[in-house]
Amino acid sequence: MDNYENGLKIRESVIGKEASQLVSDSLEDIAPLLNEKTLLAFDEADKRKILDMKQREMITVTALLTQGDTANQLRIHIQGALNVGVTRDEIVEICIHCLPYVGFPRVLNAIAVAKQVFSNQ
Amino acid sequence: MDNYENGLKIRESVIGKEASQLVSDSLEDIAPLLNEKTLLAFDEADKRKILDMKQREMITVTALLTQGDTANQLRIHIQGALNVGVTRDEIVEICIHCLPYVGFPRVLNAIAVAKQVFSNQ
Amino acid sequence: MDNYENGLKIRESVIGKEASQLVSDSLEDIAPLLNEKTLLAFDEADKRKILDMKQREMITVTALLTQGDTANQLRIHIQGALNVGVTRDEIVEICIHCLPYVGFPRVLNAIAVAKQVFSNQ
Amino acid sequence: MDNYENGLKIRESVIGKEASQLVSDSLEDIAPLLNEKTLLAFDEADKRKILDMKQREMITVTALLTQGDTANQLRIHIQGALNVGVTRDEIVEICIHCLPYVGFPRVLNAIAVAKQVFSNQ
Amino acid sequence: MDNYENGLKIRESVIGKEASQLVSDSLEDIAPLLNEKTLLAFDEADKRKILDMKQREMITVTALLTQGDTANQLRIHIQGALNVGVTRDEIVEICIHCLPYVGFPRVLNAIAVAKQVFSNQ
Amino acid sequence: MDNYENGLKIRESVIGKEASQLVSDSLEDIAPLLNEKTLLAFDEADKRKILDMKQREMITVTALLTQGDTANQLRIHIQGALNVGVTRDEIVEICIHCLPYVGFPRVLNAIAVAKQVFSNQ
Repeated sequence: MDNYENGLKIRESVIGKEASQLVSDSLEDIAPLLNEKTLLAFDEADKRKILDMKQREMITVTALLTQGDTANQLRIHIQGALNVGVTRDEIVEICIHCLPYVGFPRVLNAIAVAKQVFSNQ
Repeated sequence: MDNYENGLKIRESVIGKEASQLVSDSLEDIAPLLNEKTLLAFDEADKRKILDMKQREMITVTALLTQGDTANQLRIHIQGALNVGVTRDEIVEICIHCLPYVGFPRVLNAIAVAKQVFSNQ
Repeated sequence: MDNYENGLKIRESVIGKEASQLVSDSLEDIAPLLNEKTLLAFDEADKRKILDMKQREMITVTALLTQGDTANQLRIHIQGALNVGVTRDEIVEICIHCLPYVGFPRVLNAIAVAKQVFSNQ
Repeated sequence: MDNYENGLKIRESVIGKEASQLVSDSLEDIAPLLNEKTLLAFDEADKRKILDMKQREMITVTALLTQGDTANQLRIHIQGALNVGVTRDEIVEICIHCLPYVGFPRVLNAIAVAKQVFSNQ
Repeated sequence: MDNYENGLKIRESVIGKEASQLVSDSLEDIAPLLNEKTLLAFDEADKRKILDMKQREMITVTALLTQGDTANQLRIHIQGALNVGVTRDEIVEICIHCLPYVGFPRVLNAIAVAKQVFSNQ
Repeated sequence: MDNYENGLKIRESVIGKEASQLVSDSLEDIAPLLNEKTLLAFDEADKRKILDMKQREMITVTALLTQGDTANQLRIHIQGALNVGVTRDEIVEICIHCLPYVGFPRVLNAIAVAKQVFSNQ
């Protein structure tokens, strides 16, 4: 299995088959290289140990929450966090933990996305 | 032990007695309320379980790395992460994991701070 | 009257009863602690004098405008600014004053929100 | 032709007559000064040589992509870039080139806007 | 008195003659146009009433504090705020008021600059 | 010549041999993977045509200028821009062109770095 195939397998297991397909579909006609690069990112995250997938998704959610203007990516990775075993309580606690560092607006935006994801399950 | 005393105990155990004292010293004459608020933040992080201190420092480092213009806080919390049991390899891996989400400049800034902290130990 | 009750009273007087209720409703099932924390923030803003509510809402609008990805919060606080006596002309002038510091995109986003708020009154 | 007239002429030639009119319409009742200032910005961009309009729109798209929370402005300036001769491939390549510097979320947001603009042509 | 002369007069009265001269000196050989544009910004801030200079400097300090990576500009405008009558307590209170919106790192950075400015007086 | 070798060759030709060596030195003991990834980024920038190196460095400078807290990277890429044929006047004009989009603080920070780079030549 090459890097792209492994990346696809990991991406599907983390963000779900449907979301993974949507990423491919949204990029294949305009910038297929970006799709390939997301596959390589998942492949690498899988192969470089040190952090497990649960820790990685917690970090990803934190980075997206902090950066702002990332609602689409946050939706995918809050679902991804749930898929790899992060609990709802842990996701909400990540948001609360970030409050002193990033302030209410970023945290409330993330909570709104989490609420949406939780209700769609 | 009241909230402030517990917050001080936790802050000292996480970022170290010396750094904790420096925070107090830097704020006591100009904005002592902000010092008290950092104590309450540490008190809360201790009391609300769900995430342990190691997870919390990993999240804090991620939020600071992503936000930018946070070298001073990153220095304190990379040391804090080490103090609560995050390994050097895990800290470096957090930085690498964030690369696809935040780009090289934020990651290289964080690596430069980590290098400084590691060499001061 | 305890801190939470006073916080609620102030929050209602600043952002309006309806918006205050919406904040509570949106958080009570997922992160009630965050709702409590917003109440304490309003309680504190009320009790620590030095700046009056009008100045505080001008500062809040500026911080939200500058931070970006804050349309929801800006909507609430532009209405809040009007509620505590900031005029429409002052809100527009805050946006214009920020232009040299933050650039057109942030300012035009804020103006679009202001326009919406003004037309809903 | 005074600065405002020239600015309007340039703005129309870059972002299109319709989009130019929409900017005027959205600002004329709430903050006409901001409309005048955008006209002066286009007038200046035209008169200060050194960079040509194609280079300027490439730079503008990059700045908007990087800043985040700029979907409205990005829509106008990706169309503007096309109007002054930047090709679709070049716009996509700007997004890809920025990936190592700003990360996936900003780049994927810009690609989504580009896709929308391309499909509306 | 033309716009540039008035802008210079206002800039000197707000940020001080020495700081005003430093801005001119730092820009005159590399980008004199940017110096002229800061003069026009001060001229406009003076002529468009609605907000007085004290309110404007409070807004400017807030925008700079929130934006991050603005230590040089914050130094000038915290001094400017003092020069037009904002008190030290008000400047510290602006920082504290922003805490729930922008988080500790931005606020502590601003407090560090304020401390430096206060001690240089 | 493999991708890493070509990446090194391009990195040396863009940012200079000395700066390229400094990047390697700063990363080799703490995060050698990040050094390899910068090499691959330069390799790709070289191989995917569409934009030439001069356009790429103009875009990179714009992205760094806009992002903020990027002084180290901006220093390298303003020098890089000069090395691939962007003139001093064009670099200054990029900064001025960005003013309406990002505001004075980001632009003045970039101008200060540019001044330093120009004076070191």
